[in-house]
Amino acid sequence: MTNKKEIIAAIIIIGNEVLSGRTKDLNTSTLSIWLNSIGISVREVRVIPDIEKIIIETVNELRNKFNYVFTTGGIGPTHDDITAESISKVFDIEYGFHKEAFSLLEKYYESGEFNEGRQKMAKMPITSNLILNPSSGAPGFYVENVFCLPGVPSILKSMIGGLNNVLVGGDPILSKTINLRTYESEIAKSLTNVQINNKEVEIGSYPFFRQGKLGVSIVLRSIDKSKIENCNSQILEFVKEKKIEVVEID
Amino acid sequence: MTNKKEIIAAIIIIGNEVLSGRTKDLNTSTLSIWLNSIGISVREVRVIPDIEKIIIETVNELRNKFNYVFTTGGIGPTHDDITAESISKVFDIEYGFHKEAFSLLEKYYESGEFNEGRQKMAKMPITSNLILNPSSGAPGFYVENVFCLPGVPSILKSMIGGLNNVLVGGDPILSKTINLRTYESEIAKSLTNVQINNKEVEIGSYPFFRQGKLGVSIVLRSIDKSKIENCNSQILEFVKEKKIEVVEID
Repeated sequence: MTNKKEIIAAIIIIGNEVLSGRTKDLNTSTLSIWLNSIGISVREVRVIPDIEKIIIETVNELRNKFNYVFTTGGIGPTHDDITAESISKVFDIEYGFHKEAFSLLEKYYESGEFNEGRQKMAKMPITSNLILNPSSGAPGFYVENVFCLPGVPSILKSMIGGLNNVLVGGDPILSKTINLRTYESEIAKSLTNVQINNKEVEIGSYPFFRQGKLGVSIVLRSIDKSKIENCNSQILEFVKEKKIEVVEID
Repeated sequence: MTNKKEIIAAIIIIGNEVLSGRTKDLNTSTLSIWLNSIGISVREVRVIPDIEKIIIETVNELRNKFNYVFTTGGIGPTHDDITAESISKVFDIEYGFHKEAFSLLEKYYESGEFNEGRQKMAKMPITSNLILNPSSGAPGFYVENVFCLPGVPSILKSMIGGLNNVLVGGDPILSKTINLRTYESEIAKSLTNVQINNKEVEIGSYPFFRQGKLGVSIVLRSIDKSKIENCNSQILEFVKEKKIEVVEID
């Protein structure tokens, strides 16, 4: 399952609202799908509270372990938004008004509306690089391999495209899903054999309940399309033998 | 914000399908809301791949740091379900057929249907305690402070109630949400003052977009209802002064 060209990343979701269960995290899914498409595999996600010490420790641990780290949340104007100040401390860079960010926001707001609260959104590590925000003005930023994005899913989504030319990925990770009308226990042994014979394809098996019916999704992932296809054929072989209905392949 | 009686927990989501972005994690929200209701605060969530070494290291780190650890995923019958064997190694307990689990599953399936695949679901640390599964037979289990639950959200939901008498929580964490028709930057300064004057209430501020309109949810959390109410009054004071519309309080 190792991949010589593999570029790996971690995501840090900063926010008490996810830990309390109030908000469901949607950003992991958005970031992972996008990163896969540019050849970067997400290998760990952490959800942590809005506590400076924990943010600093977590970022330091993960930025040394992964090629890229993405944080979401905590870059707004309120007292609980402490990501930018924490990242300044991680890299020992002055936390203050970022000139380019300040001027962007000054232009974004109408005259007289760029108040103290809004100005806080221009405060970050002063030498960081900006991640532009087409939906609401306030930019994210990055320092070395740590990329700081907002927590609001629609805003995050609008910003990530701007990073496609900044990040260096490996080969895109391809996947194929085979949905079967069966139970996991019916195919477990055959699937184990296929995995043993196809070590470079990651094979996942996930039961599903859809429209009142049970089934199993088999997900094949690899950077090598021919290896996925080979694996797919071997699975369809035992599926045919066992007379299992194929619901869908995509 | 410290709480003398605080009992803290971590959640470990085991599953490549969440890391790849294919599946959105719904279990954190379910577990956190339930744990809050019995006085346990979730302080960290990690999403990790189906790799034994990483499962063992993560469980070992977190079980020493938190009162309780909950894992989800990886306890089914297929080759990628390796949670039970990993937990056996964490605690150095033999991995094999759990007598009670085996007999439960034997009764659950019709004669002749308890095949090798299904039998795997009775394999776990042999001296672990079971977490019964009212929806599909296959039980979860726990060893010391580590509780292993399935990844399928509806099944997990049906099982957690059985743990209410096993877990020892602190005071339930209460919360109140004030939804305002405003921008975060309009209230940031006033809210900071309220937080400074109410250190024992955790105040979160979250922008929302609902029915095409912008707003801010202020979430107050504490074990002390009177402190939440006090904080609420102080917020409503500045809200009135600033002539901000209150959309909803709950």
